[in-house]
Amino acid sequence: MPSEFELIARYFKRAPVQAELGVGDDAALLRPTPGRALAVSSDMLVAGRHFFADADARLLGHKALAVNLSDLAAMGARPRWALLALALPEADETWLAAFSEGFHALAGKHAVDLVGGDTTRGPLNLCVTVLGEVGGQALRRDAARAGDDIWVSGELGGAAFGLAHLRGDIALEGEYRVDCLLRLHAPTPRVELGLRLAELPRVAAIDVSDGLLADLGHVLTRSGVAAELSLPAVPAHAAVAARLTRQRAADGQALRCLLAGGDDYELCFTAPPQARAAVQAAGVAAGVSVTRVGRVVAGAGLRVLDERGAEMSIDVHGYDHFAA
Amino acid sequence: MPSEFELIARYFKRAPVQAELGVGDDAALLRPTPGRALAVSSDMLVAGRHFFADADARLLGHKALAVNLSDLAAMGARPRWALLALALPEADETWLAAFSEGFHALAGKHAVDLVGGDTTRGPLNLCVTVLGEVGGQALRRDAARAGDDIWVSGELGGAAFGLAHLRGDIALEGEYRVDCLLRLHAPTPRVELGLRLAELPRVAAIDVSDGLLADLGHVLTRSGVAAELSLPAVPAHAAVAARLTRQRAADGQALRCLLAGGDDYELCFTAPPQARAAVQAAGVAAGVSVTRVGRVVAGAGLRVLDERGAEMSIDVHGYDHFAA
Repeated sequence: MPSEFELIARYFKRAPVQAELGVGDDAALLRPTPGRALAVSSDMLVAGRHFFADADARLLGHKALAVNLSDLAAMGARPRWALLALALPEADETWLAAFSEGFHALAGKHAVDLVGGDTTRGPLNLCVTVLGEVGGQALRRDAARAGDDIWVSGELGGAAFGLAHLRGDIALEGEYRVDCLLRLHAPTPRVELGLRLAELPRVAAIDVSDGLLADLGHVLTRSGVAAELSLPAVPAHAAVAARLTRQRAADGQALRCLLAGGDDYELCFTAPPQARAAVQAAGVAAGVSVTRVGRVVAGAGLRVLDERGAEMSIDVHGYDHFAA
Repeated sequence: MPSEFELIARYFKRAPVQAELGVGDDAALLRPTPGRALAVSSDMLVAGRHFFADADARLLGHKALAVNLSDLAAMGARPRWALLALALPEADETWLAAFSEGFHALAGKHAVDLVGGDTTRGPLNLCVTVLGEVGGQALRRDAARAGDDIWVSGELGGAAFGLAHLRGDIALEGEYRVDCLLRLHAPTPRVELGLRLAELPRVAAIDVSDGLLADLGHVLTRSGVAAELSLPAVPAHAAVAARLTRQRAADGQALRCLLAGGDDYELCFTAPPQARAAVQAAGVAAGVSVTRVGRVVAGAGLRVLDERGAEMSIDVHGYDHFAA
């Protein structure tokens, strides 16, 4: 059986492009760009919680990095380096080859160097740390102000629908099934959109990993403001939209996936109304739709409004890893 | 039960001293010192492998950070920031309070800001990422040259003796027991020594986490050189030394703990002979003994010599997480 060091050399060591020293020493040595803020984030993915233990290894390699790049996107940072620590039940080389392939493919797409990490034996656990640089203005959660528009990129609910399908709660067919499972397993971090938004004045952003209501809620809390969200404006994945249309709000499952489904990794952000054209242009340049879904108001709390502007009673919650 | 976000706020959120933005956004925002290399390292600790699942939480908080600071020490970097991702079987607040206390106490000692991380439910797993800055010359593993001295800080074998005691392989008593268990559970990262060594020309270093032979072996491989290690010169923890003296090399356990015992987190480093006085001075300034244990020679491999300078046949190996 190959040793820990052989495994690292075989699957994770690459000649670093942007680092003075990559995998293989006590620490990596990086040369950050002088004058730029460094954005750093760690995310841990646990088998049986964030993914099924038998998940496709290549997609998992993609996702482990994607969810971290999504954090950098939500900060408006350009990803540059990553570290990967993983605990594996056994040194399964077929799995490692596929996992590292998925990881490196996404890393290469964003010119990210894997510069370090750790490999150990244990219950399957992936901990990725990413480092990026902020050239413009960081998209902090505390930047929202009353009067700002609330925006969402792409479409929501697809990943949650994919998960509901895997759990047998709903039955998706054909293209809907394929696409929702891809949303779940291979999310696209909105890196380019984040970079473009960082060029605009005072944008607050978060990535939608725990559900729109919960994640927008974090922005509101940090900014000390409230919000009105227009349910009909929220861009739903086609599979979700079809079910909402057919069964209206009576379909609690679809509504829950749309407003509280995690794992979409779209950006939810706020911007002053004067920036509407610039936000639209940023979306076009980044190749992703951006939709205005509500507005920031003074006060506290988050109200969801129906098509007539009346407040709805919504009983959905975001994902909390320690909720009962 | 408190939510994931309440737990983070309660136990891990501190006002950052050195960061623009700490825990609570999508990523932390740091301002690295212009012109300095940034050293980054991640280490993952798994229950049942790196520590016992019922380990004292305060000591574990210390150790999770200490082993990472040790990586920075072995690079000659000044620690500045840390991220902590942890998977917990349950939200045990007593455990979290003690763990975070141990973590923050060591962080405070080294002026390290905890700037981010992740909390999730899962089999107990701790992944710490540390960032530091190199002011002098990084202590790279590939810097050893034939003719250099080989040095070790502190004393070796104590942590491995503590572990052997816990496993029932040996029976330690009194001060030996207390001290060996402390070495195992609460290692002291040699940060100050690393910083001072980085001021000297061409020092190669590694921290002894997998055992002296294995870790020195990494330096030799990376540098493309060989070494002669003088067994009588290797500084042994008093408990180990007592057993070696009493039972000579016949005690395979003591010899194994000395040469292949992990978890001591001392530094093993090489330096040109001209730097002997400067190395000694660095040890004095850092408050830790430094001992010359051998020399780097041309070729490949690592020979262990006895008191008469004759090569010994040593059958010990360093720790490999995937070895059978």
